[in-house]
Amino acid sequence: MADVPGRRILGILVAVFFLLSAAHSAGTRSNDGIRGFLPSRVEAERALEQKLRSIPDAARAESNLRRLTSEPHMAGTEASHRVAEWLLEQYRSFGFDAEIVSYSVWLAEPSEVKLELVAPEKKTLASPEQAFPQDKDTYDKHVAAAFNAYSPSADVTAPVVYVNYGMQDDYRELESLGVSVEGKIALARYGHGYRGIKTKIAEEHKAAGLIIYSDPGDDGYAAGDTFPNGPWRPMSGIQRGSVLYTQIYPGDPLTPGVGATPEAKRIAPADAASLSHIPTMPINAQDAAVILGNTGGAHVPRAWQGGLPLTYHVGPGAAKAHMKLAMNYQQRTIYDVIAKLRGEDDNAWVILGNHHDAWVFGAVDPNSGTATMLETARALGELARSGWKPRRTIVMCEWDGEEPGLIGSTEWVEQNRAELQAKAVAYINIDVGVAGPNFEASATPSLKELVRDATRDVADPSGTGSVFETWREHSSRPAQESGAARTRAKAEAPGDVPLGALGSGSDFCPFLDFAGIASMEVGFSGDYGVYHSLYDDFYWMKHFGDPAFTYHAALARIVGTLALRLDEADFLAFDYTAYALEISRAAGETVTRAEQEGLASTSVKEISSAAAQLAASAGRASQALQGISGAPVNVAKEEEINRELARVEQSLLAPEGLLGRPWYKHTIYAPGSYGGYEAEIFPGVHEALDWNDAGALRREADSLAAALRRAAARLDEIARLASAYK
Amino acid sequence: MADVPGRRILGILVAVFFLLSAAHSAGTRSNDGIRGFLPSRVEAERALEQKLRSIPDAARAESNLRRLTSEPHMAGTEASHRVAEWLLEQYRSFGFDAEIVSYSVWLAEPSEVKLELVAPEKKTLASPEQAFPQDKDTYDKHVAAAFNAYSPSADVTAPVVYVNYGMQDDYRELESLGVSVEGKIALARYGHGYRGIKTKIAEEHKAAGLIIYSDPGDDGYAAGDTFPNGPWRPMSGIQRGSVLYTQIYPGDPLTPGVGATPEAKRIAPADAASLSHIPTMPINAQDAAVILGNTGGAHVPRAWQGGLPLTYHVGPGAAKAHMKLAMNYQQRTIYDVIAKLRGEDDNAWVILGNHHDAWVFGAVDPNSGTATMLETARALGELARSGWKPRRTIVMCEWDGEEPGLIGSTEWVEQNRAELQAKAVAYINIDVGVAGPNFEASATPSLKELVRDATRDVADPSGTGSVFETWREHSSRPAQESGAARTRAKAEAPGDVPLGALGSGSDFCPFLDFAGIASMEVGFSGDYGVYHSLYDDFYWMKHFGDPAFTYHAALARIVGTLALRLDEADFLAFDYTAYALEISRAAGETVTRAEQEGLASTSVKEISSAAAQLAASAGRASQALQGISGAPVNVAKEEEINRELARVEQSLLAPEGLLGRPWYKHTIYAPGSYGGYEAEIFPGVHEALDWNDAGALRREADSLAAALRRAAARLDEIARLASAYK
Repeated sequence: MADVPGRRILGILVAVFFLLSAAHSAGTRSNDGIRGFLPSRVEAERALEQKLRSIPDAARAESNLRRLTSEPHMAGTEASHRVAEWLLEQYRSFGFDAEIVSYSVWLAEPSEVKLELVAPEKKTLASPEQAFPQDKDTYDKHVAAAFNAYSPSADVTAPVVYVNYGMQDDYRELESLGVSVEGKIALARYGHGYRGIKTKIAEEHKAAGLIIYSDPGDDGYAAGDTFPNGPWRPMSGIQRGSVLYTQIYPGDPLTPGVGATPEAKRIAPADAASLSHIPTMPINAQDAAVILGNTGGAHVPRAWQGGLPLTYHVGPGAAKAHMKLAMNYQQRTIYDVIAKLRGEDDNAWVILGNHHDAWVFGAVDPNSGTATMLETARALGELARSGWKPRRTIVMCEWDGEEPGLIGSTEWVEQNRAELQAKAVAYINIDVGVAGPNFEASATPSLKELVRDATRDVADPSGTGSVFETWREHSSRPAQESGAARTRAKAEAPGDVPLGALGSGSDFCPFLDFAGIASMEVGFSGDYGVYHSLYDDFYWMKHFGDPAFTYHAALARIVGTLALRLDEADFLAFDYTAYALEISRAAGETVTRAEQEGLASTSVKEISSAAAQLAASAGRASQALQGISGAPVNVAKEEEINRELARVEQSLLAPEGLLGRPWYKHTIYAPGSYGGYEAEIFPGVHEALDWNDAGALRREADSLAAALRRAAARLDEIARLASAYK
Repeated sequence: MADVPGRRILGILVAVFFLLSAAHSAGTRSNDGIRGFLPSRVEAERALEQKLRSIPDAARAESNLRRLTSEPHMAGTEASHRVAEWLLEQYRSFGFDAEIVSYSVWLAEPSEVKLELVAPEKKTLASPEQAFPQDKDTYDKHVAAAFNAYSPSADVTAPVVYVNYGMQDDYRELESLGVSVEGKIALARYGHGYRGIKTKIAEEHKAAGLIIYSDPGDDGYAAGDTFPNGPWRPMSGIQRGSVLYTQIYPGDPLTPGVGATPEAKRIAPADAASLSHIPTMPINAQDAAVILGNTGGAHVPRAWQGGLPLTYHVGPGAAKAHMKLAMNYQQRTIYDVIAKLRGEDDNAWVILGNHHDAWVFGAVDPNSGTATMLETARALGELARSGWKPRRTIVMCEWDGEEPGLIGSTEWVEQNRAELQAKAVAYINIDVGVAGPNFEASATPSLKELVRDATRDVADPSGTGSVFETWREHSSRPAQESGAARTRAKAEAPGDVPLGALGSGSDFCPFLDFAGIASMEVGFSGDYGVYHSLYDDFYWMKHFGDPAFTYHAALARIVGTLALRLDEADFLAFDYTAYALEISRAAGETVTRAEQEGLASTSVKEISSAAAQLAASAGRASQALQGISGAPVNVAKEEEINRELARVEQSLLAPEGLLGRPWYKHTIYAPGSYGGYEAEIFPGVHEALDWNDAGALRREADSLAAALRRAAARLDEIARLASAYK
């Protein structure tokens, strides 16, 4: 493992028919190679890509976005259905074979959302978001009251306790202050973790309810100018969002593991482990200030003080609140759009996805992604019209019901698991396509270098070099704190352009965690303080996010390039040496942790030796694939190798799933049960260590080691096939 | 130098007639020794100390403080004279030989302090501090308008630029933003450095004026509950304070280096290098919010955002301000009180000092110190009345004019330099005596262990062990951010209870930096947000700082114990091995820095060899002093050695002073020219490195090395005397 990270050129598993120069990694292109392509095919691929990249158009992306954000279109509503129908039309007009796939899912649409302070004085809260004359959309009559999806209905009155971000460390701090939330309403600020984890922890601590607010110290005036003068959240802005326990399983709560077709067998809501039992509601900063001005009790620890102009107190004291929620649950229909551009090999699918449902207008989240996907689709369609036929089938998916809980994607993956596991090459996700100028990506380690490569071939809209160069430049700057929901990028090595690991919070989750399909997510981030609010609208995008829509066009080029490279490759550009390196590092850290905690059993030590075996197998497969160089083309044998390459990821699934949450089957990555959106590595093993449970640890370590050995065996098979390739 | 820090028991230079047990350093007392005392004298000393410590009384400290804070008593006013007269009476009543020593100094008393926003709208600012019904003192008619001492008079109107803390890094950041303060009014928040440095830097950048405000993110509501509900600064609270360039020289600006007696030769104010040429004024947070709400221009870097509920902008933009100051400068009289309790040897003085002048009422700063000093004085007086005569003379000083610029102490030290250098043993300073429960101390390294020892013998008012134990406990906790003016404590080694180095900001400065007298400062700190405001009054102390006045009584015991140990010691307990260790460390770091910057000349390398020589000499002197054990007492020879021990510090003075500020003569410590209150080590050398000036570096390095060799020679002389002691 003496590879220099960032120049893992020897470790590229695919057929490397040329030596990548150091200059390549340093941001300039080597002039004759594309990872995964035989030399004879590089020129044609380059011409095809150049043609594709010439098509996406900023003005069309803008008009797409204006159309998509013309009305609020929450999942489960007719407006969302209308968006799906329009998308269907678009894909068909581009030449795709498109259809709407609908599911019947358990979904609320609240009829009453009420909050008042009842002591020390009476005050009506749950104030709506302010309308601003310069932005007519903010006056739209169809904006629903802000709520948290999958909160139960409730009517509770109780004293309030401020719990900071409401994560586990905060409750430990509360305990040291001698304060309990039992029977109280917990008031948490947004940030530092998925809101569904805040609810889960509050429920475990027996809170009567949870209120979550947006603190101006996190994504409001302290971060920068607020809407409509700037991109940050104004005092009345509310972050909607789901509190479904997606960390247990995402998708329709009543059909875990199977597609929510009309005839699917359903469990009772009371038996759904992904549903909370305490009410949760979101409020804005101005309402939170009223409550926090009356909390009383001890002064908070310094780090708990937010940006409101008052001294924060923990409570419980004078402040007593009354929450009333009538959620109106029923079976509601959601509408995915699945569009295919059939390839020579219809048994190999390159899948792209983006959700179309939004909390309100969703200009950034998700329709900047939708507007972009449409431009990518239009470009692919034009290539096809001009005579090109994809080598593999390209499947473009527009998901519904992502916001309440990744429902459209999860149900589709659950319904089609067997076919997907047989055919899928990889999954490319877009969600927040454009929220600013900073490119960011997350991916399974096998795909990271592919993402870096694609960004080297797309010009940055800033006019200074490629997206890759700008990305490397901004990723080397210290991170700006921001209120954005996801942290994606973590440098894996100095000098390297970092890609994050995939946790949860978007539609790649069922693909990777349930079906074992290698995935990535790409997009441009920025100063985006209006997440899940009324103000995430066209005006915001036009004034702050991407006024010229050039980042939309650039993203359409990146996504198109990624799709073509996966679609057209001779040998799929999966880098398992890099994957094995990340696993080996994590194995070392895990064994060290277990040793420190006195839990380093034989099973735990097996993780290291299985990781070493995986690394050795990855190296051999890489070498064998490189040895193919010069052999005559044999498409059938190529496809046999490619099928194996695509399925290494599936070897890492444990059929029985993780302990306590069997839906999650990936042994290497999962969203943390208590950690937020971020990916946890070796989730089963680390949670067993968290619980200090030697039995669970043995089970999870055995399961992980077995997965690593399965992946190693598949890589050995690839080495055998490659060596035999003639 | 193989000493284990925190257990430098082998390095104690004084006659160590007993082996300090490890338990001693761990917080419990060894039961038979006192550093510096012959075994035959320990029992008597212990009895004397116990008697002294039985005398200070919380109720008397409280009544002292109530009396001292009965009216505002700013330096240069008749009220300050009245306080001096009352103190004179007190010291005389305790049996001290006391007198008032007055000086005539150049001092302002403003007749007009005006600030208004003139654009984009007209708004009167410079709002006064709000009165609160629960605290009658806040209605006092004699509270003067808040101002910054030594601002010139002025009448300027200009756009405003926000400069964060107004320190050097901030101007570098401004430059990178392309913003200049030239011709503008700079708006800075308090903190991160002495306000006189903020003015100096603003002047160097050609600002037309400077406004300094207290940001609630630093010492207001974000830190905790505000006055009168808590100890932190309310929105109307203003921090007064001097902007005299004390970093160039403190004291009367017209008589640098000599006492400001009526007949002293004076320079013209225009020639006084310690006077600013641009106007500076302090304002409260509510006025700052009005200005910052209109600054305009670029959004600030994230770290510049303070705690006000708005987005901070750098400017210049719409906001234009009009400052008018009429300062009414003239010669005014200040009144020191000098009280002596004569000892057997009137040629050896143990000096204690505290200022009595206050910006308004000064309950914490400085009168918690004054109230405490009076209790120490009363205790010493009672001991004397019951038949004890001090071995050395105890001199207790109550300084006037500290707030405008350490004037009372500086003039007295300047006037009496020769006598002080001949007679002074050490100087103990108290300023903020009690602002809460956390003991803190700063000292020349030779005295640090003496301070730790004294706190081992005083019970902590919390009821849990000694002050030392509580001190060690809280100093091991992570530092709370706070708005307190001075950072005193920096751990020099893990496990050690840290004592800070002496920078500036109080009356030890002329003793140490000008006269080379070993010094220390002690006091209890805490959540103290009302620094230099109207609200630093008796109500604050009674409700927040020390409601039972037990910390005042404890401090009187600590100070009394320190005074007795210095007064009665057979061999003065100066630890030059510890001092040499700190110097050696700093020498290593300095040579490394010079090497990194390509400036490691022969002169610079000489610092290391001179430091090594000092360490060797200190070790030999220590050993020789230990060898005295068992010799018969010979007071004359003891005093000869003690005089040399006390004067090692003076060897570290460079007669020509530091480059650019000749008043500062100490080669090891000085306040930074641009760094704030904190001490800079090897100030001449480091500033020459800052300037990248090889010539200055050679001069300063030679001067430092020569000082270290002088100190080494004096320690060699001590070794010779100790070896010859019979």
